[in-house]
Amino acid sequence: MGYEGLAVGVDIGGTNILAGLVDGEGNIVARARRVTDPADPTSIEAEVAAAVAELSERDEVVAVGVAAAGFVAPDSSTLLFAPNIAWRDHPLGARLTERIGLPVTVENDANAAAWAEFRFGNGRGRHDMVMLTLGTGLGGGIIAGGKLFRGGFGAAAELGHLTIVPDGHYCGCGREGCWEAYASGTALANLANSIATADPEAATVMSRLAEGGPIGGAHVTAAARQGDAVAVRLLRRFGYYLGRGIATLAAVIDPEAVIIGGGIATAAGDLIIPSAEDGFRANLSGQGIGGRLQIVTALLGNDAGMIGAADSARVASTSAVLSRA
Amino acid sequence: MGYEGLAVGVDIGGTNILAGLVDGEGNIVARARRVTDPADPTSIEAEVAAAVAELSERDEVVAVGVAAAGFVAPDSSTLLFAPNIAWRDHPLGARLTERIGLPVTVENDANAAAWAEFRFGNGRGRHDMVMLTLGTGLGGGIIAGGKLFRGGFGAAAELGHLTIVPDGHYCGCGREGCWEAYASGTALANLANSIATADPEAATVMSRLAEGGPIGGAHVTAAARQGDAVAVRLLRRFGYYLGRGIATLAAVIDPEAVIIGGGIATAAGDLIIPSAEDGFRANLSGQGIGGRLQIVTALLGNDAGMIGAADSARVASTSAVLSRA
Amino acid sequence: MGYEGLAVGVDIGGTNILAGLVDGEGNIVARARRVTDPADPTSIEAEVAAAVAELSERDEVVAVGVAAAGFVAPDSSTLLFAPNIAWRDHPLGARLTERIGLPVTVENDANAAAWAEFRFGNGRGRHDMVMLTLGTGLGGGIIAGGKLFRGGFGAAAELGHLTIVPDGHYCGCGREGCWEAYASGTALANLANSIATADPEAATVMSRLAEGGPIGGAHVTAAARQGDAVAVRLLRRFGYYLGRGIATLAAVIDPEAVIIGGGIATAAGDLIIPSAEDGFRANLSGQGIGGRLQIVTALLGNDAGMIGAADSARVASTSAVLSRA
Amino acid sequence: MGYEGLAVGVDIGGTNILAGLVDGEGNIVARARRVTDPADPTSIEAEVAAAVAELSERDEVVAVGVAAAGFVAPDSSTLLFAPNIAWRDHPLGARLTERIGLPVTVENDANAAAWAEFRFGNGRGRHDMVMLTLGTGLGGGIIAGGKLFRGGFGAAAELGHLTIVPDGHYCGCGREGCWEAYASGTALANLANSIATADPEAATVMSRLAEGGPIGGAHVTAAARQGDAVAVRLLRRFGYYLGRGIATLAAVIDPEAVIIGGGIATAAGDLIIPSAEDGFRANLSGQGIGGRLQIVTALLGNDAGMIGAADSARVASTSAVLSRA
Repeated sequence: MGYEGLAVGVDIGGTNILAGLVDGEGNIVARARRVTDPADPTSIEAEVAAAVAELSERDEVVAVGVAAAGFVAPDSSTLLFAPNIAWRDHPLGARLTERIGLPVTVENDANAAAWAEFRFGNGRGRHDMVMLTLGTGLGGGIIAGGKLFRGGFGAAAELGHLTIVPDGHYCGCGREGCWEAYASGTALANLANSIATADPEAATVMSRLAEGGPIGGAHVTAAARQGDAVAVRLLRRFGYYLGRGIATLAAVIDPEAVIIGGGIATAAGDLIIPSAEDGFRANLSGQGIGGRLQIVTALLGNDAGMIGAADSARVASTSAVLSRA
Repeated sequence: MGYEGLAVGVDIGGTNILAGLVDGEGNIVARARRVTDPADPTSIEAEVAAAVAELSERDEVVAVGVAAAGFVAPDSSTLLFAPNIAWRDHPLGARLTERIGLPVTVENDANAAAWAEFRFGNGRGRHDMVMLTLGTGLGGGIIAGGKLFRGGFGAAAELGHLTIVPDGHYCGCGREGCWEAYASGTALANLANSIATADPEAATVMSRLAEGGPIGGAHVTAAARQGDAVAVRLLRRFGYYLGRGIATLAAVIDPEAVIIGGGIATAAGDLIIPSAEDGFRANLSGQGIGGRLQIVTALLGNDAGMIGAADSARVASTSAVLSRA
Repeated sequence: MGYEGLAVGVDIGGTNILAGLVDGEGNIVARARRVTDPADPTSIEAEVAAAVAELSERDEVVAVGVAAAGFVAPDSSTLLFAPNIAWRDHPLGARLTERIGLPVTVENDANAAAWAEFRFGNGRGRHDMVMLTLGTGLGGGIIAGGKLFRGGFGAAAELGHLTIVPDGHYCGCGREGCWEAYASGTALANLANSIATADPEAATVMSRLAEGGPIGGAHVTAAARQGDAVAVRLLRRFGYYLGRGIATLAAVIDPEAVIIGGGIATAAGDLIIPSAEDGFRANLSGQGIGGRLQIVTALLGNDAGMIGAADSARVASTSAVLSRA
Repeated sequence: MGYEGLAVGVDIGGTNILAGLVDGEGNIVARARRVTDPADPTSIEAEVAAAVAELSERDEVVAVGVAAAGFVAPDSSTLLFAPNIAWRDHPLGARLTERIGLPVTVENDANAAAWAEFRFGNGRGRHDMVMLTLGTGLGGGIIAGGKLFRGGFGAAAELGHLTIVPDGHYCGCGREGCWEAYASGTALANLANSIATADPEAATVMSRLAEGGPIGGAHVTAAARQGDAVAVRLLRRFGYYLGRGIATLAAVIDPEAVIIGGGIATAAGDLIIPSAEDGFRANLSGQGIGGRLQIVTALLGNDAGMIGAADSARVASTSAVLSRA
């Protein structure tokens, strides 16, 4: 698929914007960054426009793609719901198109990351894959038959909210036992802090790294890197639950590969993946047909959302190949 | 989609063959039936050929489709594994094409039923749906974007083996806690017989209907129809577990509808569906986006596999629209 | 059992002391109350002594019993561990005996409450019963054969930490799935606040009662009293989990009755008990032998700890009947 | 406790009777054995009488104790319910007393075994212990404060029917998720046969030992003894679930020790106990107070029921110390 021309990708996070000028091979030619105030949604639009202007000053840009957390409507423009910014049924793409003067498409950030890995990362050469982004939560994107899979109402791949343990841990979504309540940075931190409260001695290494504050996912991975047995055990358990959910994905959509990204995967993929494979195999459907699925770490790191947003906007503008029939 | 011409559909069961001549609107113009011996796989092929010959005697037939339980390879011809007949990596389609002299495609039976409901049944007018066939086991078929969804290795929609209860009931697949160990005819019968052993009085009505033999799913639904409180409770629990799995489907693939077919759905759909909706809603992902999903009973009954096999063969022969790019 | 003479009972809470002069029929003849600073353990001892002095000014007192949260050693004097006050291996009874000049025995507060209900409350006339105190946590006391059951190491009836849901809710103890993470005031509040965050509309009534602050168990019971459907559902679920744990108790120790006390039981016992009976029956051992167990609310309210501490001290001083052989 | 004189103990199994003349130190001085027909309950009484007559021919016997599976009433005579023999509310002790001319007491077999281990086996020197007999099912007996613990209705220590996995494996009792559905010979056999059906290759060693018949618990332990990795894994999992239930016992009754007997413990105690300790520790209540509990194998093997029945009858006849106050 040779989609040509430069595109701008913008990844709107809770407190800052990452923007990049991305070529047809997924290379980032130039970068821009803006700090934003999540309490002032309008200013975020202005900052996105400014970043795009900066990056398109010297080069011709064929499309602009924006990645954001939340539910995106099938029009690839409207944010139905954003978890961190007060956007509800908000025509983000249309408003940015007007400001910028170029076609702007909006994509869920986990979908954008999945698309980037599929096109330029460790999903290259596959048709059917899942990308899991392990950050504060657990985000998912599905590529099926070489296309982003969006489902009947645009809400497919809500993978963080698969039920993994009936009546289990509370989840921020208001339910219990969701996958991201067992396999996300927040889950890892909760578990570590719960141990630190009940048995401070067991958490000595992690607590020292946290310098008196609450233990975060990064402290757990750092402690594990230093060989701390408790942290290693927490990451193994994390991996096991990751694998349990992957077995569910295999039974439903049978992907060729599951790609694991996000901060925890970058920091501790080697510690997590063997346990994820154990958890997957222990929960794998009977005839073992799904056993060929591979679990691999992501290639593109934090840039995946930006690259994927740029590329999917370029593909859409070039060929409308992603538009729903 | 106007695919014209008559096609033959054949549904190969464990002990008999249902065949039908199916027109472009899904109507069955003529029928044939053969009893077969599952221990003699070659004779089954001969009976399929004979049934097709009988049905194509007077009319021109454009295609032949065969539905069978098991894993079908992406070539739509090879049965990788059949649970009831000793077919392993068996080129069923190619062998039947040779015998019959017409192109024969092979489809998983649950997929064929899903396709029939999508084209001519209660899935009509939708793009994204799931069909669940509740028989001895729990079979699944997924339609996504108007096409059968087959996954990376051809094993998608292995829905009966989703894990619903960690470390739960034994499943025939060798694992524990699978969906079909909680929501299938076998599961319903196991639960009823377990109660009958431990507390015969509670199972009086069901046992009387079973006339001294083991209680089957049909006896449970019949007892519920007579108002037996224990049988009604068993079906409610069945529905609850059905809904719990549907919530998982919603989180992964977000279908517009889930269609419930098979003997139990026909006999007791009205008793099951309200509980399935409860189980679905209780396990639904946070923002409720998936809440628009509808749970409905199937329209086509036992003919679904046959109709779907015929129609998907006709569509494939006409336009190759289902073939993988 | 006619144990005569007046005894003083003292219930040491986190921030205040309840003391009472208790006669041989469990009546409170006089009362005293002191506010204390949990950060200053020595001052608590002084306040206990002062309260006892006040109550024993005019009447002869035969014994003093103190109830406190925590693990009490078999010597009925040493607090091995207190959750709210910095007492570790602390000879509380011996120190108070010295200050006060009367024999002082120390009892776990849930045990003291159980003893009070057994002697003067709704456990009267039974030999084998369990008392569950549903407050911030879930405290338990067991009476077996007419005596407090203390176990091999003095730590029996740690009932709040029975595992009810494998891998379930975090518990303050550092583990997951404990009974008190499903059936305590804290659990009820967590669940309500989790709903209020995810679906504010569903929590309207409870949130209004909480006046903008976090919802507490008392707000849930108040909302249920007003007929709020969500609050009623939360209490039913609470009751169900209560019953599930009671079924475990029945299988292990087979009590004649389980008495439910604490703030939630007082406020909403009528809403909780039917669901507790359902949960109990659904999880009851096979032959139903345990089915005669009764679940009833407590009689003595907040005074139970004080009354039980006084009475068990009097019994111990009179007859040493409670001392371990 | 020096209880003198010889007593006869009789262990009534499903198809045979073990009888022994037991001295005050728990030694078996003489033995008798009878094969019986469970379908002819009256003949069983005759055989018991004959065995007792044989053993009391040359020596003076002070008491006769009978151990049997089932619920025994507080009168130590009436079998309320026996699982293998058609005795319901059957005055077994009174009938045998009449036949034999000596006082006959009846005890639940798991209780009798617990008493034997407490008095003469690996429970010697303890006050508070639990005995778990791992046979076809999981039987339990509790010693508390040096006495058999019988509960409010005589049905305490129904430990096989603790719920370990909510909605888990079917149990013969009609419920799901009971401890004995995860930790008994039947559970071990079910799991092994389930694997053998789904993945015959994995079960090669166990199946060969079973010589074509269904795999039994003994085949699993024999395969594990030969180093078969699958069998070893099954026993580890068995041990883990054993430990999970022991953690529940610790939270409720806090025993000093849990003694593991029965065929599986004898054959594979060394393989099971480390996993049981892991499962126990992983599920142990927060402050770790219960962590001193020891898990040990039994000493007396198959004779435990017989020895315990004889000894508890002698103790009862000598001092009535076991009678309920």
